Order: sequence, then C-alpha cells, then structure tokens
Amino acid sequence: MTTKYISASIPTLKRLPRYLQVLKALNQEENMYISATKIADELKVDSIQVRKDLQSTGIIGKPKLGFELKELIQSIESFLNWDNLTDAFLIGVGSLGQALLGYENFKKSGLNIIAGFDIDEKLVGKTIRGINIYNINKVEDLIKRMKINVAVIALPANNVNMIVEKIVEAGITAIWNFAPVHINTNEDVIIENVNLTQSLAVLTHKINERKNKDGGTK
Amino acid sequence: MTTKYISASIPTLKRLPRYLQVLKALNQEENMYISATKIADELKVDSIQVRKDLQSTGIIGKPKLGFELKELIQSIESFLNWDNLTDAFLIGVGSLGQALLGYENFKKSGLNIIAGFDIDEKLVGKTIRGINIYNINKVEDLIKRMKINVAVIALPANNVNMIVEKIVEAGITAIWNFAPVHINTNEDVIIENVNLTQSLAVLTHKINERKNKDGGTK
Repeated sequence: MTTKYISASIPTLKRLPRYLQVLKALNQEENMYISATKIADELKVDSIQVRKDLQSTGIIGKPKLGFELKELIQSIESFLNWDNLTDAFLIGVGSLGQALLGYENFKKSGLNIIAGFDIDEKLVGKTIRGINIYNINKVEDLIKRMKINVAVIALPANNVNMIVEKIVEAGITAIWNFAPVHINTNEDVIIENVNLTQSLAVLTHKINERKNKDGGTK
Repeated sequence: MTTKYISASIPTLKRLPRYLQVLKALNQEENMYISATKIADELKVDSIQVRKDLQSTGIIGKPKLGFELKELIQSIESFLNWDNLTDAFLIGVGSLGQALLGYENFKKSGLNIIAGFDIDEKLVGKTIRGINIYNINKVEDLIKRMKINVAVIALPANNVNMIVEKIVEAGITAIWNFAPVHINTNEDVIIENVNLTQSLAVLTHKINERKNKDGGTK
C-alpha cells in the first residue's frame, strides 16, 4: 500500500499531522472512505493541496470514494516514520522538560524519551513519569554506551552550546531544540527548533495590529 | 527613534526574536554598535535580509558603524509590542500548562498570564508559580468581568472546540493554541497554533531520510 520511503517537502511534512488529527477524530469504522475535499473543508484549506500531500505518502484513492480511512491513517504514519520508535535522551528536566515527559503524543509520533539528564541534585536519581533522571555529567558516557543519536534539549539559554558540543562529540546526530538559543554545531547534525517566543511574536503583533485598526477600542 | 506602528510579514516577525537572542547575549555597553552583517554571521543567514528586517522596526543605522545596541534591542521589542504587557488567561493547567506558567520568557515577550483554569479539583484553588487556578466553570464570568481578550489553551484534544466556543462568546479575541486540534471559530479570532507534533514530524522524517541515505548504518 505505502511505498517504503519517499522524500517530502517541509510544508508537506507539517501539514500531514494536521490531516491525521482530523482523521483520528472520525469514527474509524471498517470500509469507511474519506475524500481529500472533506479533509480540506474541515481545515479550511485547498483540496488540491490535500490530495497531493496524501498521494505523496504513497496511497492511491478510489475514484468517487476517496481513501479508505484506516489505510490512509496508516499510510501517513508510516510515511512520517511514526510506526518506528526512535530512542532519545532529554537534556534538561526543569518545568519545560517535565512537561515534555508528560506529553503522551510524542510516543505516538515516533519519539521515545528513555532517560533524562539534569544538573539539579534535587532531580538526579528521581523517576519522573517512568523516566529515570541522571546527572548531566553521565550523558556523554550513556550516549556512547546506548548508541543514542537523538537529543531533546529543554535547557535554559546558558551553556546550551557547550553541552551541545559535548553530546555531538559523543554521538548525537539530531537535536530537537526547545532552548531559546541558536545552536552552532556542524552541518551534519539535524536541528529542529521550537522557539515559543517566535510564535508569541506573531500572536502579540497580530493583536497589536488589530488594536491599531480598531483605534484602540478592543 | 522607533515609529509607533508598522505592519510586518510573518517571516520577519519570526526572525526578529532570533536577532534579539543574539543581541541580548552581547555585553550591552554604552555606545556599542553592531552591524547587520555581524548578526547575520552569528545566525548563518543572509545579511541583506537582516538589515531589511531591522530597518522595518523603524531604526536607522549609522554608516560603517551599524546600529547602537541598546537602541536596537529597544526598537525590536517596541516593534513586537513586547514593552506592553497583555493580560491572558491560561486554560488547562496540566503538565503542559504548568510548564507554560514556569516559562519566564513569556512576560519578557509581552504576555502576562494572570489566572489559570482547569477542571481538575486537585488543581482548583491552588496557586502555581504565583498564579491562582480557578474552576473552568468560572472562566466565562471572569473573562467578562476582567475584560480579558487573550487565552492560552493547553488542554488535551477533547472538548477544546466546545470550550473555545464559550470563551469566544465571552470576549476572547486571540488564542495561543497548544492543543493538538484544529480550532474552528469565527474568522475575527486571531489563532496562533503551536503544534509540537508538526515539528516532530519534520525531525523524525529528516532522521529517517538520513538513515536511508546512509543505508541504515547510522
């Protein structure tokens, strides 16, 4: 049904999880079909785009019926590689790090956090949501011994690049970065940044824009 | 120095906080100047783009010197409206919501969370990081009485749209949405989505792409 591997554009990759949200909200009955148009209507986006994105996962729809629902969900998940769990270390187990440990959706999305690391003596030795927290000074050794390639960074801004240098040296080749800093490392390392202040910049500016339009009445 | 208000493109709005990160990491001495080229080098981006973005905040640089550092920081923050705090309610105070309460950067970025709301009786009545948590059934009344326009939504997927309908009815006109669902509401409401699984989709796909390139050796 699905092809083993196809490359995809970043915009397509970002849209696919949204389609999954819509699909998973539906009753997954046997032999239920859904059209790209239906998904597009739900999300208020262009249906040609949806059809193209879905087809890029390798699935082939039936004329007039659309896509078989369960098969479509599986096709997207397989395409995103979410049916293969990748082990990862969490670096920084403060409030943000602990929230990430509690976010069950990650496992459904292919990421399996298997240990946490922090400098805070109050956290080291604890088990949070089933995950053991180790002293940060053990991280390089454990990356090597357990052959871990993926790190989730939830540190405050200080010292991030110093720690990144160490973990990349030890074997990390992909970083999901929540720290509010720009990571300087070699080009082979995959970096995906989640910068919440960037998102907030868009929100606060839009609010301000509207205030000005309305002459400050809102 | 800075103009009162100028509209900006979303990409510019998203780049400005990254420049701020770089600028704030520098020693803010009196009469220190920084060039767009220096910022561009630090972030490995195009310097013409940086200069254009900075000028869009209304600041004017000096030939050969660049921009006065403190003035530049203030110009960007003022442009992003981060020098005016906007009061907001947090809806959902589970692990993600609590992490958001602990994220000090929001206040620096213009968002002031003044109360939290949850359905969980164990949370209601508590004070978390200085913020009082109220029963969700009080939210509509308090939105009206306190004239709150901005909500941060950190609920799990269930019931999000039912709650959104209520709070929009009560007066919310802008939503920062962390819930993994598509929000259906009227077009006047500003919605900024933070969908962590979308970001994760990009990361896991890139990791998979590399695995395939390397023939599975990494």
